[in-house]
Amino acid sequence: MTETVAALDTYDVRFPTSRQRDGSDAMNPFPDYSAAYVVVRTSAGREGYGLAFTVGRGNDVQVAAIRALAPLVVGRPVHDLVADMGGFSRQLTGDSQLRWLGPDKGAIHMAAAAVLNAVWDLAARSAEKPLWRLLADMSPQQVLDLVDFRYLRDAMTERQALDLLISGQRGRAEREARLLADGYPAYTTTPGWLGYDDDRLVRLSRAAVAEGFSLIKLKVGADPAEDVRRLGIARQALGPDVAIAVDANQIWGVAEAIAWMEQLRPFNPYWIEEPTSPDDILGHAAIRKAVAPIRVATGEHAANAVIFKQLLMADAIDVVQIDACRVAGVNENIAILLLAAHFGVPVCPHAGGVGLCEMVQHLAMFDFLAVSGSTEGRMLEYVDHLHEHFVDPVLLRNGRYQAPLLPGGGARIHPASVAEFSYPDGPQWHVGRHG
Amino acid sequence: MTETVAALDTYDVRFPTSRQRDGSDAMNPFPDYSAAYVVVRTSAGREGYGLAFTVGRGNDVQVAAIRALAPLVVGRPVHDLVADMGGFSRQLTGDSQLRWLGPDKGAIHMAAAAVLNAVWDLAARSAEKPLWRLLADMSPQQVLDLVDFRYLRDAMTERQALDLLISGQRGRAEREARLLADGYPAYTTTPGWLGYDDDRLVRLSRAAVAEGFSLIKLKVGADPAEDVRRLGIARQALGPDVAIAVDANQIWGVAEAIAWMEQLRPFNPYWIEEPTSPDDILGHAAIRKAVAPIRVATGEHAANAVIFKQLLMADAIDVVQIDACRVAGVNENIAILLLAAHFGVPVCPHAGGVGLCEMVQHLAMFDFLAVSGSTEGRMLEYVDHLHEHFVDPVLLRNGRYQAPLLPGGGARIHPASVAEFSYPDGPQWHVGRHG
Repeated sequence: MTETVAALDTYDVRFPTSRQRDGSDAMNPFPDYSAAYVVVRTSAGREGYGLAFTVGRGNDVQVAAIRALAPLVVGRPVHDLVADMGGFSRQLTGDSQLRWLGPDKGAIHMAAAAVLNAVWDLAARSAEKPLWRLLADMSPQQVLDLVDFRYLRDAMTERQALDLLISGQRGRAEREARLLADGYPAYTTTPGWLGYDDDRLVRLSRAAVAEGFSLIKLKVGADPAEDVRRLGIARQALGPDVAIAVDANQIWGVAEAIAWMEQLRPFNPYWIEEPTSPDDILGHAAIRKAVAPIRVATGEHAANAVIFKQLLMADAIDVVQIDACRVAGVNENIAILLLAAHFGVPVCPHAGGVGLCEMVQHLAMFDFLAVSGSTEGRMLEYVDHLHEHFVDPVLLRNGRYQAPLLPGGGARIHPASVAEFSYPDGPQWHVGRHG
Repeated sequence: MTETVAALDTYDVRFPTSRQRDGSDAMNPFPDYSAAYVVVRTSAGREGYGLAFTVGRGNDVQVAAIRALAPLVVGRPVHDLVADMGGFSRQLTGDSQLRWLGPDKGAIHMAAAAVLNAVWDLAARSAEKPLWRLLADMSPQQVLDLVDFRYLRDAMTERQALDLLISGQRGRAEREARLLADGYPAYTTTPGWLGYDDDRLVRLSRAAVAEGFSLIKLKVGADPAEDVRRLGIARQALGPDVAIAVDANQIWGVAEAIAWMEQLRPFNPYWIEEPTSPDDILGHAAIRKAVAPIRVATGEHAANAVIFKQLLMADAIDVVQIDACRVAGVNENIAILLLAAHFGVPVCPHAGGVGLCEMVQHLAMFDFLAVSGSTEGRMLEYVDHLHEHFVDPVLLRNGRYQAPLLPGGGARIHPASVAEFSYPDGPQWHVGRHG
């Protein structure tokens, strides 16, 4: 009997991270890291896992958006979906009524990410491979077929992307051996949350050095004198050899970003992340010109590949920060990896949150094996929150992500954690309600 | 006793327009025009009405997004909201958890529009004025205070906007008299839906001439030969004096748009609307350069003022098409009106759908009275669907919108229509279910 998708189960899972101000920044003072979690169940009893990450309120809206996609998935033969993930991706983002809520942005687009990634997870489990290897084992033409080029050809044609993928085949076996032996470089944001006090900043900065990281990231943008002070503290705790990136989380306008970064310039920040609105391509270009040689980074809130395309065409950024579930999942992220490689700009994925590390590592490793073929200037973000809730949590050694070896895409949450942190009825939310 | 907001009631209202292919275009072949409708009720028994427009599936997600904003509204003194609509607008779009679902885009941003516009409607009813007059009666400084300049100053400073508004005061009384006497110019999209047959196209084109319109709009983008054929039929039916704009509803990439428009050039289209992704500022700029002197228009899916800012800075468009509830309502639309006036680009609002004509006419009339001070090159879209469901439907005479005189912002739907078309339980949806 044909195996079909029997159900798309959704869960509103919220972790009360705001109680300790984990994850706090200039724009998000009190986040409750949350997952709109989805389980795709098949008629053969198999499952695939995906999620959209939010920061608390609104996670119910995100769950509703995922549910709205159910009719595009439930009842369909699993083989049909998995055999044409390019077509399935276009169906998820192209439904002529649902796309009105975007198009290609916001809750409905993140919902497509959650569902598509869950089906990729199922595909990887079927193949008994971690997702990075499933992707890297595809032929250049198969990878190309995953990507929707409709709005991208003015920057990169199918032919150019295919040539990139064909070049990416060279030396692949050697790179895979290196990846398995040494892992993938990482940086850490753990010390740098805005709501942490000085003692915690010092302690966590020292720990980052001890753990082998060569870059840490600090949140900035609430008060310039305070930023200068905290950068001084961090520099002292880190010693001279660890770089510091800073992250403003969209708090500034263009002129403000430029002026503020003049004040932070003496600390030689490795990059300034999200200096302004993620939609402001021309603004990023102006900021980059003014703050050079400080790099400009963005992407965790860039809604889709069209935004990334323009950031690259306009020479607006030095670092591309993909997110596993902001754009429409694996396929659109592959489009962005291809664009970044085409423009010669390194990708340093956004992670942290709930499961973002677990998911996005697969894309960075796929990029290393099959697209850019390089780890130079590339680092995966790491934050040490909430990994204990994942069935296959990330593993870091000497400041590097170790390649995951279990089948799947990384998003599976322990059923006990889903129950414990379900909102609003899980025990964690009955104990101490807060706004 | 202080009057507070007692409740925010929401309704999923859907009209089965796809049964006749009303509203069909290259990207939306079978839309069911829908409203995520909101009623703000006060403790004194007064009400304000707003909505977000969608095209069917997903209207429930839009309703959920509106409900997520309830804690920012319910229980608050009405006077506090109305006395500081600038601050209230920033609260609706700036909630640090909810904005993650955007930021400033998609379902959560449209939800802010619905709620903010409902409170504007309440304010206009309190003042016993139509919204256009309430806005036009505000001082330049009061209007300025409605706008969030954080991401806009690189294009337009507060000072420049204030100067524009002060200039806009000159001749206002005379313009108001003209508006009341003659109305505001309109164009019609009624003849041009892609799913209509030739007879209907001819009949409705002739009707448009008879009704006094000087511009009609045709949907294009499904098939070039068919577009050429339909443009020929429309031209013959219209005679030589009525202009034809065309609308591709985002179906093309950049090169495709340019090539396709070469084929339509002999018909001298007045503008090409939505030639490509609404996020593609650089793409629109490239298309505009190539298709000149054909104008380029976009905006109904431009997510926020930052996108419009860049479209204007990059000389990417000739026509700014605001929508009453795609961006965050009245306030963000005023920002866009100011930007358009600052760059000297005319605004021709997007309308049609459900209640969009009823709402956006207030913004066009406010623009004429207090911002651009002109109707030159400016026309309000008109489509003759679904007006019968509104308590204060638009009134056209000689191809011009007559200024509405009843208090409010136009979004109030007849309670009987809300009941009849409620989804999925209203009688209209019980009679004939369809996908």
